[in-house]
Amino acid sequence: MKGFKTLTPIPEAQRVFIAAVAHTPSEVSVPTPQAVGLYAARDVVSPVDVPPFDRAAFDGYAVRSADTLGASRTNPVMLRVVGKALPGAEFGNAVGSGEAVEVATGAPLPAGADAVVPYEEAARRGEYIEVYKSVPQFYYVSRRGEDVAAGDAVLRRGRRIKPWDVGVLASIGVREVAVYKITAGLISTGDELVELGEAPPPPGKIINSTRHVITALLRDLGVEVHYLGIVPDDEEAIYMAVADAASRFDIVITTGGVSVGEPDHVVRAVSRLGPEVLIHGIAARPGRPNSAAVVQGKPVVMLSGFPVASIVGFDVFVKPAVHKMVGAKEEPLPTVKAVLTRRVTTPINVRSYIRVRVYRQGDKLYADPLAVTGSGILSTLTKGNGLLIVPENREGYDENDEVEVILLSPVES
Amino acid sequence: MKGFKTLTPIPEAQRVFIAAVAHTPSEVSVPTPQAVGLYAARDVVSPVDVPPFDRAAFDGYAVRSADTLGASRTNPVMLRVVGKALPGAEFGNAVGSGEAVEVATGAPLPAGADAVVPYEEAARRGEYIEVYKSVPQFYYVSRRGEDVAAGDAVLRRGRRIKPWDVGVLASIGVREVAVYKITAGLISTGDELVELGEAPPPPGKIINSTRHVITALLRDLGVEVHYLGIVPDDEEAIYMAVADAASRFDIVITTGGVSVGEPDHVVRAVSRLGPEVLIHGIAARPGRPNSAAVVQGKPVVMLSGFPVASIVGFDVFVKPAVHKMVGAKEEPLPTVKAVLTRRVTTPINVRSYIRVRVYRQGDKLYADPLAVTGSGILSTLTKGNGLLIVPENREGYDENDEVEVILLSPVES
Repeated sequence: MKGFKTLTPIPEAQRVFIAAVAHTPSEVSVPTPQAVGLYAARDVVSPVDVPPFDRAAFDGYAVRSADTLGASRTNPVMLRVVGKALPGAEFGNAVGSGEAVEVATGAPLPAGADAVVPYEEAARRGEYIEVYKSVPQFYYVSRRGEDVAAGDAVLRRGRRIKPWDVGVLASIGVREVAVYKITAGLISTGDELVELGEAPPPPGKIINSTRHVITALLRDLGVEVHYLGIVPDDEEAIYMAVADAASRFDIVITTGGVSVGEPDHVVRAVSRLGPEVLIHGIAARPGRPNSAAVVQGKPVVMLSGFPVASIVGFDVFVKPAVHKMVGAKEEPLPTVKAVLTRRVTTPINVRSYIRVRVYRQGDKLYADPLAVTGSGILSTLTKGNGLLIVPENREGYDENDEVEVILLSPVES
Repeated sequence: MKGFKTLTPIPEAQRVFIAAVAHTPSEVSVPTPQAVGLYAARDVVSPVDVPPFDRAAFDGYAVRSADTLGASRTNPVMLRVVGKALPGAEFGNAVGSGEAVEVATGAPLPAGADAVVPYEEAARRGEYIEVYKSVPQFYYVSRRGEDVAAGDAVLRRGRRIKPWDVGVLASIGVREVAVYKITAGLISTGDELVELGEAPPPPGKIINSTRHVITALLRDLGVEVHYLGIVPDDEEAIYMAVADAASRFDIVITTGGVSVGEPDHVVRAVSRLGPEVLIHGIAARPGRPNSAAVVQGKPVVMLSGFPVASIVGFDVFVKPAVHKMVGAKEEPLPTVKAVLTRRVTTPINVRSYIRVRVYRQGDKLYADPLAVTGSGILSTLTKGNGLLIVPENREGYDENDEVEVILLSPVES
């Protein structure tokens, strides 16, 4: 077991933790339209060509391109219109030399034709059209297999499935797709907690709000959440709950009961499970108590009980662990450059997360750091709309510095 | 009725369309934990203070700050430890002058105390502690109402509810929240379409993949989708289907059957509904046939049947219409600056959407434009991971230009 006696810098904590994660969630098959937001468990190769036939890519006239050679406004080529081809039906006859067939976008290209002259480049003269442009072969034709050729990989293992991926899978007739079913066992700890319910909490108690934040973040990440209730601040009870969860779920997440002093039952309980890696605390502010372990290849993340600090721990440990298990990369986050309105001072060798309010004035963006005193200041995330991460090698930023901010909500005006 | 005979530039199309949207979806109450991703229908004001009591923000000793005046490593102050306060319980006694109570993070601050000395700044000597630091009032104390004060607005109408908003709402005991229930009636048109099913499509037919792309995009936007099936390319049938949908849903979306030529049944059918605004085609590439109308204040968006073009129409018309109806702003998109690897040529006065593959080489990002010939080239969205939007006033970009790209999937390495 590799242990840490002191707060671990985030990059080192992530490297050691992620390297030890060696569990793969199980694979399930889901109907393609329901796969959005899940992670592909296998490469998918197309069995067919898309489109399955050459088709018109514009409204106009299907022609033999050779017939239009030399056509221009001053010297149009006359072609005889022999019919009309609509989407959804095969045109019965072939287009001969000197002939044209009116086509709507999406219609199969009639046999004999090899290009489409758009309406704009032609004019109808009774049974004939005048063509004003010399069109090359396959002009405004979507060719068979142009979008996807049989044998092309259309989805790679680990990709988080997007709306347009579902479009491609549907196009090639893939009705079900293999995805990872990622399950999380979520355990709240803390004698001070009561669940959100009818009555206001009794004196000394607070509502378990972190549970709902972490549940929502897990769902956003494509993880199925199994909430296992509030476990008392008791090492034995926590040990039992975590051991049970680790046997049933792909990732175990606890909230609360981690700190540098007492009652720190959770880290002690998890250490009894014989973890390959145990990281106790990280150099983050807020978020210092966030801890993580790997038990038989499975990630066990011990988040702070404070909502804001727990979000930091989620980003540091939970997201990368889930991505590692399914072979995914982290999705990009929206960022903007903004001018800092006040100086921000942070400790060296610690990664600091500063909540800011980003607003537009004129054509410039400004980031106003929100005054906070503790890790429980969740409301800064609803008052603010951005996050400024100050790296370990800086002691903050000066007023008027241009900083990069992660946008969590729209910019204000 | 305001009509357009020619392709409308996107900014003008959006301005006229959005100005006419005057419908508001109905309000429903949902349990707070299920509200993530939905839009608040009302401001929510906190009935209580959070935290509801002063509490320790660090592990250590609760003290009277005045007692620590002048304390230092060389000249520590001695205090007698009279007990221990844990989270979830009220400490029975008060802290007197010269006394301290051991506290865990989250514990209610015992009466009499007004600051916390962290373990690091003290040492236990039997019944006593030596305090090494002079702490100010409320040092490491989370004050009552510090996070949220009674009367504070914690959620504004129109805000798309985030995981941390749910945390704040739960903290203040809000069990249900008023959100907009936004419903979309989705109609596919096109005689060439068959649904994704057991058998491969017969000759001349293609699978209705755009339906699934648009459904997924609507769900991502927090909209409830009611799919109304494939309507034949027949003006009367489309008129009936759209009229029915407009009476039942907040937004009506059709796919297919819009183009600058025939068969353009959809725009004709919608124009019979007497729209306040009708925009027939936009200056977009791809996406030119995307059209939109407003019928009795409700948005009716007529998307291209081609998947990629339909995504452009979705961004141009559907997203802003939904945001207008619920008073929301557009959520920020992830963007990066990248070096273009090849010249891109686009028509002037048209907004062009170029799919690119963004990859990292060294510490620079590059954007490789994907070769495409038509609006059906959905696979560029699975092969690519970014979108380069060329504005109306440009005819493209040169090789090696630094461009801003919208990231749709992670950067490749």
